[in-house]
Amino acid sequence: MAKQIYKQVLSSLIFLSVLLYQSNTVSSFRKSLDLAKPCKRFVFHLHNVAYDGDNTVNATSAAIVNPIGLGDFNFGKFIIMDNPVTMDENYLSKPVARVQGFFFYHGKSKYDTWLSWSVVFNSTQHKGTLNIMGENPFMEPTRDLPVVGGTGDFIMTRGIATFTTDHIDGNKYFRIKMDIKLYECYY
Amino acid sequence: MAKQIYKQVLSSLIFLSVLLYQSNTVSSFRKSLDLAKPCKRFVFHLHNVAYDGDNTVNATSAAIVNPIGLGDFNFGKFIIMDNPVTMDENYLSKPVARVQGFFFYHGKSKYDTWLSWSVVFNSTQHKGTLNIMGENPFMEPTRDLPVVGGTGDFIMTRGIATFTTDHIDGNKYFRIKMDIKLYECYY
Amino acid sequence: MAKQIYKQVLSSLIFLSVLLYQSNTVSSFRKSLDLAKPCKRFVFHLHNVAYDGDNTVNATSAAIVNPIGLGDFNFGKFIIMDNPVTMDENYLSKPVARVQGFFFYHGKSKYDTWLSWSVVFNSTQHKGTLNIMGENPFMEPTRDLPVVGGTGDFIMTRGIATFTTDHIDGNKYFRIKMDIKLYECYY
Repeated sequence: MAKQIYKQVLSSLIFLSVLLYQSNTVSSFRKSLDLAKPCKRFVFHLHNVAYDGDNTVNATSAAIVNPIGLGDFNFGKFIIMDNPVTMDENYLSKPVARVQGFFFYHGKSKYDTWLSWSVVFNSTQHKGTLNIMGENPFMEPTRDLPVVGGTGDFIMTRGIATFTTDHIDGNKYFRIKMDIKLYECYY
Repeated sequence: MAKQIYKQVLSSLIFLSVLLYQSNTVSSFRKSLDLAKPCKRFVFHLHNVAYDGDNTVNATSAAIVNPIGLGDFNFGKFIIMDNPVTMDENYLSKPVARVQGFFFYHGKSKYDTWLSWSVVFNSTQHKGTLNIMGENPFMEPTRDLPVVGGTGDFIMTRGIATFTTDHIDGNKYFRIKMDIKLYECYY
Repeated sequence: MAKQIYKQVLSSLIFLSVLLYQSNTVSSFRKSLDLAKPCKRFVFHLHNVAYDGDNTVNATSAAIVNPIGLGDFNFGKFIIMDNPVTMDENYLSKPVARVQGFFFYHGKSKYDTWLSWSVVFNSTQHKGTLNIMGENPFMEPTRDLPVVGGTGDFIMTRGIATFTTDHIDGNKYFRIKMDIKLYECYY
């Protein structure tokens, strides 16, 4: 009887070893992701003040290419930005990060944008960057965008950023709530 | 003799525990990837109809910056697009997704482009996006581009997109076969 | 006593199996990364010769949008490039790769850029691409940028690129030392 148990134990060990070996050699995989349990999460607010030719001091973004006249929804407008990010909705609060990058309008029959942004942290709490990119249909109440990489405290991170438009004031100002959930954290 | 087996079993367990522990703490790794076994695969066709100033109804893309005159291969031409994607090669088939993003020409002595595209699915079958980006030497018969992230059904996905130019009709129209192979799937 | 050891061994096996099972189903994770041990590393030098309207033969990059006049630090200048990369600092050395992509200036009160670049290898030693993107505060002595994906020999790679500005000659020429450390390697 003891012998049988030995055999069982040893074959289990062999099975486990094969599993471990496989985990090093076969890389295509499916995993389920518990969306409710990110390894890191941030919620904050981005403020964008558009340059109108007259507000050099306050402007945080500016169009570098104007709409080309295809449809009535700014198609072709290309904006570069260097925007403050705050913990609350108040534009005057102390920034905890900046968002640097660009976005452009690509909708012919509705407003629609595409963006690529770096969130840059430089505080006592966090140092590093993370990158968000992709389709941003900003007329939707919320939309998800992928986080594709990072540096410093966020080295090689990945996850999802959920954007909600807090406020739009014509072409002058908008505020976006960014809910960033990271599911891969290296530190 | 039984004692020796115990020892062997226990040392195996310790070895396995160390392996598992390491897999949590050491992160640089080499893995072999079985390219023939993606966890998800799509093959479909993208249609690009260039805006010529006169075809507002049909156009799906438009240049927002024109070639700057460095060489004879469109260097500097920057295009924004919102293109339909179909299962077959027929432009009139029902789209299964859209590709939104941009590309530009950067070749001084040959045609060459660089792109960043989001594939946006919004059907009963798939909801979500995936992002493809990088160098696209479109005069080559086929070329690989990285898939760097995604959302929804494709949350945090990664893989390779192989592009083949199906058809080019001057500056008016092109069709690209996109063979997208995902090797990281979370669901 | 033998019975107790069996129990201990078996419960260890169950514990290990649960760990392995979990590693397939729970995906949010924290791992520590040994930065000193990349799975691949490259150090090389990128050369950028700006187009001035007169140097068609030598130019490797050109502005496609000029500064818009917001501040004195080139805000809005958008550059497309197709730059050679060499092992040493000599511009005339044989290129081992090219870097294709774009960057733009987004600083209102200081010089600051954002970029997205593909490193394209096509030699007997390496075939494939890798993609670097994000905030590039090039007035800092060094800065890290994320490597978010790749193809060929660098399929699905990820890591960090550390940039050091070797040399700047006004608007005419700059050279950047790129120290690329990959922490995920599939081959």
